[in-house]
Amino acid sequence: MNATERDEGSQGDGNAAYGHKKFKRSKSHFADRVTADGRDGWPVEPGRYRLVVSLACPWASRALVSRRLLGLEDALSLAVADPIQDDRSWRFTLDPGDRDPVLGIRYLHEAYDARERDYPGGVSVPAIVDVPSGKLVTNDFQRITLDLATEWTALHRPGAPDLYPEPLRDEIDSVMEGIYRDLNNGVYRAGFASEQSEYEEACRDVFRRLEEVSQRLADRRWLVGDTITEADIRFFTTLVRFDAVYHGHFKCNRYKISEDPVLWAYARDLYQTPGFGDTVNFDHIKRHYYQVHTGINPTGIVPLGPDPAGWTTPHGREDLGGRPFGDGTPPDPVTP
Amino acid sequence: MNATERDEGSQGDGNAAYGHKKFKRSKSHFADRVTADGRDGWPVEPGRYRLVVSLACPWASRALVSRRLLGLEDALSLAVADPIQDDRSWRFTLDPGDRDPVLGIRYLHEAYDARERDYPGGVSVPAIVDVPSGKLVTNDFQRITLDLATEWTALHRPGAPDLYPEPLRDEIDSVMEGIYRDLNNGVYRAGFASEQSEYEEACRDVFRRLEEVSQRLADRRWLVGDTITEADIRFFTTLVRFDAVYHGHFKCNRYKISEDPVLWAYARDLYQTPGFGDTVNFDHIKRHYYQVHTGINPTGIVPLGPDPAGWTTPHGREDLGGRPFGDGTPPDPVTP
Repeated sequence: MNATERDEGSQGDGNAAYGHKKFKRSKSHFADRVTADGRDGWPVEPGRYRLVVSLACPWASRALVSRRLLGLEDALSLAVADPIQDDRSWRFTLDPGDRDPVLGIRYLHEAYDARERDYPGGVSVPAIVDVPSGKLVTNDFQRITLDLATEWTALHRPGAPDLYPEPLRDEIDSVMEGIYRDLNNGVYRAGFASEQSEYEEACRDVFRRLEEVSQRLADRRWLVGDTITEADIRFFTTLVRFDAVYHGHFKCNRYKISEDPVLWAYARDLYQTPGFGDTVNFDHIKRHYYQVHTGINPTGIVPLGPDPAGWTTPHGREDLGGRPFGDGTPPDPVTP
Repeated sequence: MNATERDEGSQGDGNAAYGHKKFKRSKSHFADRVTADGRDGWPVEPGRYRLVVSLACPWASRALVSRRLLGLEDALSLAVADPIQDDRSWRFTLDPGDRDPVLGIRYLHEAYDARERDYPGGVSVPAIVDVPSGKLVTNDFQRITLDLATEWTALHRPGAPDLYPEPLRDEIDSVMEGIYRDLNNGVYRAGFASEQSEYEEACRDVFRRLEEVSQRLADRRWLVGDTITEADIRFFTTLVRFDAVYHGHFKCNRYKISEDPVLWAYARDLYQTPGFGDTVNFDHIKRHYYQVHTGINPTGIVPLGPDPAGWTTPHGREDLGGRPFGDGTPPDPVTP
C-alpha cells in the first residue's frame, strides 16, 4: 500500500467513527520505519523497541503473529493494553499499578505526546515505541508487519519463515488489497454504517469477497504460493474474529465462517499452527467490541456464544500439501 | 396456564420493557373468551370477529398457524398490522388509507379504547375484536389458540386436526410450560436484559432447553403424541425466528438452530407443512425486531442475513413416521 492509502489501526473512538455519516478509517500519521539501515533514525536493535497491542485488535494481532512466527519475542518486547478503552483511549490497566512496566506510562497517548505535542489525531494500536526516549515511532499497521518480515531479518530466529518472499510480492499485495478493502476494513464499514444502504453495500462486499477467497482456497492450502505468507496472516486476524464479533455485532450475518467448509477448515488450519491460535484471546476480542462500541450495543452486554470449541477440531487441510514454513521450522511453543 | 400466569403478546413498547431493570412480560388485561356457549358474552359466530396480528410477532403467529390448520380463514377474518409501530403502537398503515377496511380504525388502540376508556396498559397482538361493536374481546395470546382449537369446532373445516387432544393435554401443557419460560419468553429475557448476569442466566436457560427439546425430538417427529399439536405450533413460532433475529439481535448466539441437526430438521419439517411456512414473513420479522427495538439496535439497520434458502431443503423426518394431521387432512393452499 502506498502512502496515501495508509490507514490507522484500532483507535479508541469506534463510536466517534460511527457518528460520521460514513465510516472512514483514519490515515496513519506516524509512518517512520524501523529499518536495518536506520534511514528514518530508527535502526533495528534488539531490546530497543516495544510493541504495544490490544489482543482484541485485528490490526495489532497481525504484528503478534509475525513476531511469533519470526521469533522476535526477545528482540521486540510486548505491551498489552486493556481491551476496554476509556476516553483516554488505550490504557495499561492490566499491569501492576496500571502502568506499563517498561515504558512507565499509564496511557498509550503518552508515547504519542512524547513524539508530537498536542497531536490532534486518534491513538491506535499496533504502535512501536522507542524505549529509551519513550517516543512513538510508528502506528502504521500496514507497514509494521512487512518491516518485521524484511527489515528485522538479522534478529529472526533460526528457521524463521520468509513471510514476504520477493518473487511473490506482486501477487501477495494484490490478494491483500482486496482482502483489506472488503474484509479487514469491510466488516467495519458494515458494522459502523449509519445508513441501511451503506451497510448493505459493505455487507455484500464482505460476502462477495469471502466467496471469491473460498474458491481460491478450495484446492490450495494457503493464499499465495505453497507456504504461509503475510497474506494469510492478514486474512486470519479477520477470520478468527468473524463468528465471534463481526457476524452478530457488525451484522455480517449471511453465514458464519464455520458454515463455509473451505474457509472454516483454512481458518482452523492456521489457528492450530504455532504462532496463530496462541495469539488469540476471545475474551479480549468479545469484551472490546461489545463493550466499547456503545453506539451499536448500548447495553454493553457481551454474548455467551459462539462456542469456540470447534477451533481445535481436525481440519484435514494437510491433504492439500504445502510446507507451512517453507524451508524453515515452526516457532517454539509460547513461553509463559 | 392459569389466570395469574397470563402474559401479554407483542406490545409496542419493547424499549419501555427494556428500560426496566429486568424484563417482565405484562399480564393480559382483557381475558374474555370467545366460546361455543358464549358464556362471557362472546359466542362463536362466523364473520363476527376479526383477528388482528403482526406477522412479526411470535405470539400472534401462533393464531395465524392455528387459523390455517383449522380452516378458520372464512369464519375469522384477518387484519395485519404494520411491523413497525410508532408511539401509538400497532397501526394499519399497510391498508389503503392507513385504515383497517373492516374495523375502520387506524390504530389497534382504538379497539382497546372502545372496550375500556383510558385503559392504561399496553396494546398487544394477537387481539380478537368484535366487528359489530368495534370492541376488543381478548388479547390473551395463551388462551386464543386453545379456544380456536376447542371452542370454534363447529366452524372448523372438514378434516381439521385435533390440535389439543384431551388425553394428551397434561403432557402438552407440561411441554409448553418449559418451552414458554425458557424459549418463547426466554429469548426476550436474554434480549432485553440490561445486566450481564441477567442476560447470561436467560441465555443459558435458552440453550439448556433447546438441548433438552432436541433430545426429545431425536426419535419422535413431533413434541407430543404422533401428530402435530398446539405444542408444536408454539415451539415453531420461536424456532422460525431464532436464526433471523434471536441469534444476533437478542444475543442467543451459542449456535444457530441450523447448526443443531435435529432441531433444524424438525423446524423445516413444520415449515414445509401447509399452514406453517405459509404464515411466515421474514421481512416483517426482521424489520420489526431490528427497527423497533432502538434500545438494543440504535441504528435501526436491518441485517441482510441469514440466507433463508435452507428452509425449503429436504428434512428427512418422514422416516420417523407419525401422521401430521392424525385422522384429518392438510389445509388447502393459501388463497390469495
